Amino acid sequence: MKYVKNLVCISCGESYEASPTQYLCPNCGEKGILDVQYDYEKIKKEWSKKDLASNNDPTIWRYTPLLPIEPNSVKPPLRVGNTPVYESKAMAKELGVSTLYIKDDGLNPTGSLKDRASSIAVVKAQEARINVVACASTGNAASSLAGNIASMGNEMRAVIFVPERAPIGKVTQLLIYGALVISVKGSYEETFYLSEEAINKWGWYNRNAAINPYLVEGKKTSSIEFAEQLNWNMPDWLVYSVGDGCTIAGAWKGVYDLKQIGFIDKVPKLLGVQAEGCAPITKAYKSGNDLIVEKENTLADSIAVGKPRNYIKAIKAVKQSKGDMVNVSDNEILNMMKVLGKKTGIFGEPAGVAGVAGIKQAVEKDIIKPYESVGVVITGNGLKDIKNAQKSVGEPLRVSTNINELYNLLNEYF
Amino acid sequence: MKYVKNLVCISCGESYEASPTQYLCPNCGEKGILDVQYDYEKIKKEWSKKDLASNNDPTIWRYTPLLPIEPNSVKPPLRVGNTPVYESKAMAKELGVSTLYIKDDGLNPTGSLKDRASSIAVVKAQEARINVVACASTGNAASSLAGNIASMGNEMRAVIFVPERAPIGKVTQLLIYGALVISVKGSYEETFYLSEEAINKWGWYNRNAAINPYLVEGKKTSSIEFAEQLNWNMPDWLVYSVGDGCTIAGAWKGVYDLKQIGFIDKVPKLLGVQAEGCAPITKAYKSGNDLIVEKENTLADSIAVGKPRNYIKAIKAVKQSKGDMVNVSDNEILNMMKVLGKKTGIFGEPAGVAGVAGIKQAVEKDIIKPYESVGVVITGNGLKDIKNAQKSVGEPLRVSTNINELYNLLNEYF
Ligand SMILES: [Zn+2]
Ligand SMILES: [Zn+2]
Repeated sequence: MKYVKNLVCISCGESYEASPTQYLCPNCGEKGILDVQYDYEKIKKEWSKKDLASNNDPTIWRYTPLLPIEPNSVKPPLRVGNTPVYESKAMAKELGVSTLYIKDDGLNPTGSLKDRASSIAVVKAQEARINVVACASTGNAASSLAGNIASMGNEMRAVIFVPERAPIGKVTQLLIYGALVISVKGSYEETFYLSEEAINKWGWYNRNAAINPYLVEGKKTSSIEFAEQLNWNMPDWLVYSVGDGCTIAGAWKGVYDLKQIGFIDKVPKLLGVQAEGCAPITKAYKSGNDLIVEKENTLADSIAVGKPRNYIKAIKAVKQSKGDMVNVSDNEILNMMKVLGKKTGIFGEPAGVAGVAGIKQAVEKDIIKPYESVGVVITGNGLKDIKNAQKSVGEPLRVSTNINELYNLLNEYF
Repeated sequence: MKYVKNLVCISCGESYEASPTQYLCPNCGEKGILDVQYDYEKIKKEWSKKDLASNNDPTIWRYTPLLPIEPNSVKPPLRVGNTPVYESKAMAKELGVSTLYIKDDGLNPTGSLKDRASSIAVVKAQEARINVVACASTGNAASSLAGNIASMGNEMRAVIFVPERAPIGKVTQLLIYGALVISVKGSYEETFYLSEEAINKWGWYNRNAAINPYLVEGKKTSSIEFAEQLNWNMPDWLVYSVGDGCTIAGAWKGVYDLKQIGFIDKVPKLLGVQAEGCAPITKAYKSGNDLIVEKENTLADSIAVGKPRNYIKAIKAVKQSKGDMVNVSDNEILNMMKVLGKKTGIFGEPAGVAGVAGIKQAVEKDIIKPYESVGVVITGNGLKDIKNAQKSVGEPLRVSTNINELYNLLNEYF
């Protein structure tokens, strides 16, 4: 890791060597999330926008100087990153902003932004010479880990702990990728602790985002890539939905990195969007008090995190960017799935479009001004959650095979 | 259309001007599928591999000289094409071939290869100044049309006719994209004829692949893109699953085009793979007789076409390539979903992985030799059909939160 200096605890400031299995700060326990420190001066000297422009690798590995991996480590073959950015005039008008850029991260290989983190986990596990990687998750973290592990051929194995309530559709994707899936008769919290016990016992590599400091570095490629696709001109706002807090913290880390090495001048404000039914980070952000654990009462399951573990980093990110946070209701989310689909051809899962719903609200609340430009990342593919999509849309028209019946029905449409 | 000469009927050989709404040959009716003719000499003079290499547009529009569209026509914004190709040593070994390249077309914006055809339909509709595009389909043709139309903002409308048996999950994706979905109380055939009546009555643009000669030209970009990604060295075999016949005909057209303009020397043999429960094209190919319409008895719904309308082109493609056809059972398909997922991290829908299952069988039958190289296209994303994926995989392990129970269970795995 040519440009990595060390890991620093975000709570006590202690430094640690950046070994692949250095997880939390032992002094601070669960709050001791470690942050990777880079030698920006050295990167600045040895890496330029021009180097990037002439790099034919379209994946996240084009940003290797800003990643905490050894340059020659084996990478999982799935093409992670390189997701499209669209400018949508129709949605900009709908939301009441000057310009809107939408990045569809649901087109990552396993259907979510989490591929950016899981591919890093696979690399770090290889560096640690560990061939089993484990996590507790019902959703995109798990499927992205299972898929990236599978792409290594027969070399590695994913072990995924899911609470028994995990929907069979999501479990199916894990099983297709050949993961060993362990369904735990208990809550998510109990499942998480069982996974931690097992990881320690068997010495597996730990892909829990609450623990592993390298995952956020993968997630930051979503904002770095976004910046490059906009020719290094960041919009006024960058918008992400927020569950655990790790993704938005990653987005900020990416922006911060780019600023430090002089690739961007303007730093966007971050808008963090939580679901009304589970918004502990927004509440802690607004109150200034410590986080209070909440029940999870939203259909946007990918951001339904009652006990978010990266909230300190997330709140710091929003504050440092001079941004803000809002919450959106399930109805706002369902409605936005439909509006976004109709006006852009992008089908996002509920958590994936929550950010877009948040823009609408932020404009109404005068947080985002009508003359400002906005970028938003759709974090997961709508095909992952057809059941909730059904709640969002109506029914088709029904006709017999008689053309006159159709004629009468369509007269009101055309 | 700088390089398009005209349209020629594949049945009687009559020529027609290539207007956007010139569909079937009026002399030949349903068998009068028209084929777009290009001026290859002119293309050869004015377009080179070098031009392509310096073209930064990663989408199918980089192949515009070989597409039947006006160079300045408005394109739908979705990023169609540019899907990844992976070389998989693990799967090559599993299937018993020397080299295997897998192209994951399930990562197109709406999740299937059909985006390549639907985006062309949107362009042609615009050229014809028609802002409603219609088709009869339960599957990927419909969702790709609806998505590409949606990406035009508010400018156009998709009208989709589906038989009432269409699964609600697939209808949901159409409704999310804002299509007008008309559910017909009747069979697919009745739905198709109702759509034709309505299209004629209202003057909508016709996206039925049975009728429209331009769609196959979009599909051909899958083989052209594959060739470019392999640096213009085609493998010995190129493998596609076959339903209506339009996709494999398109694949051949792409290969033929590239050969004519000197971009490739070696032409691959085509392996067409149908489902055992619905294989009218394979039967017509093997017998040499005319096609006999069949019942549709396979879970691979995207290739369950009992009355395929592009079978003449499809059989011609396989024969001209000196290729072959095989059929695979639903069990072979389900098993291959699991094997492919586990060894590559690619999750394909049943019709999407049928081609891979076909390779296995073709090797067993000595059609494909162990020393040959093979390319295969995964035509649709597995997230589109979670129900069938469930049939392919088993159940997760179930444990309580007791670590000792887990320990005993895992002893057999690690
Ligand atoms: Zn500490
Ligand atoms: Zn004719």
